[in-house]
Amino acid sequence: MSAEIICVGTELLLGDIVNTNVQFLAKELANLGIPHYYQTVVGDNPTRLQEVINIASKRASILLFTGGLGPTPDDLTTETLAQCFNSPLIEKAEIIEDIQGKFTARGRQMNENNRKQALIPQGAAILPNPTGTAPGIIWEPIPNLTIMTFPGVPSEMKRMWAETAVPYLKSQGWGQEIIFSRMLRFRGIGESALATKVNHLFDLTNPTVAPYASLGEVRLRISAKTTSEAKAIALIDPVAQEIIKIAGLDYFGQDNDTIAEVVGRLLRKKQETVSVAESCTGGGLGAMFTTIAGSSDYFWGGVIAYHNRVKMSLLGVTAEALDNHGAVSDTVGQQMALGVKQRLGTSWGVSITGIAGPEGGTESKPVGLVYIGIASPDGKVDSVKCTFGDRDREIIRYLSSCTALDQLRRKLISIVNI
Amino acid sequence: MSAEIICVGTELLLGDIVNTNVQFLAKELANLGIPHYYQTVVGDNPTRLQEVINIASKRASILLFTGGLGPTPDDLTTETLAQCFNSPLIEKAEIIEDIQGKFTARGRQMNENNRKQALIPQGAAILPNPTGTAPGIIWEPIPNLTIMTFPGVPSEMKRMWAETAVPYLKSQGWGQEIIFSRMLRFRGIGESALATKVNHLFDLTNPTVAPYASLGEVRLRISAKTTSEAKAIALIDPVAQEIIKIAGLDYFGQDNDTIAEVVGRLLRKKQETVSVAESCTGGGLGAMFTTIAGSSDYFWGGVIAYHNRVKMSLLGVTAEALDNHGAVSDTVGQQMALGVKQRLGTSWGVSITGIAGPEGGTESKPVGLVYIGIASPDGKVDSVKCTFGDRDREIIRYLSSCTALDQLRRKLISIVNI
Repeated sequence: MSAEIICVGTELLLGDIVNTNVQFLAKELANLGIPHYYQTVVGDNPTRLQEVINIASKRASILLFTGGLGPTPDDLTTETLAQCFNSPLIEKAEIIEDIQGKFTARGRQMNENNRKQALIPQGAAILPNPTGTAPGIIWEPIPNLTIMTFPGVPSEMKRMWAETAVPYLKSQGWGQEIIFSRMLRFRGIGESALATKVNHLFDLTNPTVAPYASLGEVRLRISAKTTSEAKAIALIDPVAQEIIKIAGLDYFGQDNDTIAEVVGRLLRKKQETVSVAESCTGGGLGAMFTTIAGSSDYFWGGVIAYHNRVKMSLLGVTAEALDNHGAVSDTVGQQMALGVKQRLGTSWGVSITGIAGPEGGTESKPVGLVYIGIASPDGKVDSVKCTFGDRDREIIRYLSSCTALDQLRRKLISIVNI
Repeated sequence: MSAEIICVGTELLLGDIVNTNVQFLAKELANLGIPHYYQTVVGDNPTRLQEVINIASKRASILLFTGGLGPTPDDLTTETLAQCFNSPLIEKAEIIEDIQGKFTARGRQMNENNRKQALIPQGAAILPNPTGTAPGIIWEPIPNLTIMTFPGVPSEMKRMWAETAVPYLKSQGWGQEIIFSRMLRFRGIGESALATKVNHLFDLTNPTVAPYASLGEVRLRISAKTTSEAKAIALIDPVAQEIIKIAGLDYFGQDNDTIAEVVGRLLRKKQETVSVAESCTGGGLGAMFTTIAGSSDYFWGGVIAYHNRVKMSLLGVTAEALDNHGAVSDTVGQQMALGVKQRLGTSWGVSITGIAGPEGGTESKPVGLVYIGIASPDGKVDSVKCTFGDRDREIIRYLSSCTALDQLRRKLISIVNI
C-alpha cells in the first residue's frame, strides 16, 4: 500500500511556478505514515495524463492529483480519469448550486464554463472545496485504488486536504501513528557549538533530536512517533526541558515564536516601553517590532537617523562623537540609544548603527560592522559590536534588527525588576 | 525529440525540501526551445529508479537527472544508470585528482568514500563540477538518448548547467531560437482595467503580451521568439513603447526595477531629499527606501510615530487634530508629512497613518484604512485615502509603504522643477 502524487499543469513544465503543492502533500503523507515513492508532473494533455495514470495505478493504491480542475477547456483531470476507468461523467446538482451560491456572494454571475466543474465520474464522491469553485473527488474506480483530486490553488488544496482528505484517510486506518514535533529556537550560538552541547541527545530514537540552521538562528527539532498528541508531548517534554536548561539564554522560543513576539511578551509582562533609533536599518527594527498586533502597548516609536544631521538634531548625538569616533561607533550607538529613550520617554532605547554595504566599508570599519546600543530603565547604556561580514546588504540589515531584538531580550530576562 | 527531468532524493519524497531544481531546469529547457512533458521524483532506491529510467528513456531523447551523485552509499544515480544500460563503471583519474585538489584547498583530507564519485559509465564524458566534489556525466548509452546528471545542490547544478550543459545542447542544434522577454510593471491600476486598455495587443503572436498580477502590482510580459537578443529587442521595443504611452503614470518600471529604486532615481536626478513619518508601518517605509545602496544621498531619515505622544512631540501634530479627527485621518496624515519635512529639513515629507489590524477597526474607520500624506518642496501638502480592506496585517503594511512610494513617484514626475 503506497500513495503517489500526480501534479497536472503546463505551467509546472514551463517552470512558471515552483511546485509547493507536492512538498505539502509529501510532508502530510509522511505524517500519516503513508509510504510514497513517486511524484510525477505532467502537462494539460489528456494522452500523456492517461499514460501517467496507467503507470501510477499499477504501482500505488492511493493517487493524489493536483491541478486541472478549473473551468477552462485545458482543465482535463476529471474527464481523463473518467475515460481511463471507462466511467461516465454525471452532473451533480449540489455542485452547481454551490458554485452559483459562491458567485452570488461575490455579486457576480455564474459562467456557463463553470458547469464543467459539476461533472464527476459515476460512483465518485464529492471532495468539497469550501473556498473555491472547483470541488475534487474521492473515488475508488477499481478495487484497492483510491483517487483524490484537488485544485492547483495551494490555499484551496490545503483546506480540502485538512478538512476532508485527512479524516477520510484516517477512517481507512491510516495515521494511527502520528509524528508530532516541537521546534526549539536559539540565537547567539552557532549550529556546531549548540550541537556539541546537546550531542548526547542525537542518539535518541523516540523522540529524535535534529539540528537545523537558518539565517541568524539555530533550531532543534524534537520529533516523537506515537499514537496521540498527548503521548507525543509526554515524550518530548523532558527532552525539551533538558535542552532549554543546557542552552540557557541562547534559547528564545519554540515553534512559531518570533524574536519580536518574545520581546513583546517580556515588555508587556514588565509593563515597560521601548523606542528605537535606527541608522543602517532605516526603519527595519521598528517594522519588526510592529509586525506584532497590539505592539502599541509597549512600542512607542523612534527616529530613523540615516543622515548624521538627523542623529544630531533629533537624537542629541554630539558633533564631537561623530568627528572623533565616526557614525558607526560604540559612542554614537550609545548616544543614539540614550537619545531616543530620553526624547520619547520610554523605559528602553535601542539603537543600530552600522555599514550595510556594499559600498562604504574601510579597513578598520568593514562592511558588516554594526553597533547595537541599549539604554536601560536605570539610565545605563551598553553597546554590542557585531561583525556580520561582507554579506548582502539585506542580510546585514536583517541580522542587525534580529540581533538588536535578541540583545534586548537578554537584558529583559537578566535584569530583575526591583 | 523531447527532454524529461528526473529528480532523485528521498528528502523530496519526505517533503523536507521544495524542489526548486526542477523549476530551474524547466525554465531553461523552455528558453532553449526543448519540449519537455514529464517530471518525475523518485527516492534513493535503485529498483524504483531503474523503473523510472526505463519508462522515461522510451518517451524522451534527453534525460536530465538531479541528485544521487554524493559520496554516501545511498547516492545511486550513476551506478543505476550504468546497470540500466549494461555498462561497466570506470574510475577516472582526472576526477580523483580534481577531488583531491579541492580537499587540499580547503585544508582537508579526501575521504575514501569520495572515490565513488570518480566512477562513471564507460563511454560517458565528465560534466565538470567547478565548485563541488560531485561531477556529472554526459552520456549517449544508446542511439538518440542523451543522459546528463547533476548534483542536487542547486548552486552546483546551476553552474554546471550554464557552463557545460547549455553549450553542449546548443552544439546539438538546440537553442537556435531564443525566447527573450521584457516585463513592464504598473501600479495604481487593476489587472482587468489595464487589460482592457491594451486588449488589442493580446492577439499578437511575436512578440506575445501576457498579463500577470501580484500584490499591489500588475505586470505585462512581452516575449519575443527569435534568433538573437538584438532581434528580440527590435520586436519588443515598439510594443513596449505603445503600452507605456497608453498606461501613462501607472507604468513605473521594467524587469527588476523596484518602486524604491525608481523613486530614488527620480530624487537623485532632481537633487531633492525626503524624510518619512510612519505610524502603522512602524519603519517599513524607511526600510524600503534604504534597501537601495547609496540611498543616503536623498533619504535622510524620519520619525516612527507609533504612539500619539510621539506624533505630537517629534512631528508637531496638534492635540486638536488628534481629538477632532483621530490619529488615522487626512488632517493628521498631512500634519505628520509637513512636520517631518520641516524638522528634518528635506525637500519632501511622506507620512503613513492607518489601521493595520486585525484589531482597532470601527465602522467608520475599518481595518485597511490608511492615509498617505505628501508634503512637497513648495510647502503644499496633500493626502490620499487608501482602503486596502480587511486583509492580513503584514499585507496592509506592505501595500501602505508601496503606495506611499508610488504616490511620491507620481508627484516627482508631475511636478516640473521651475
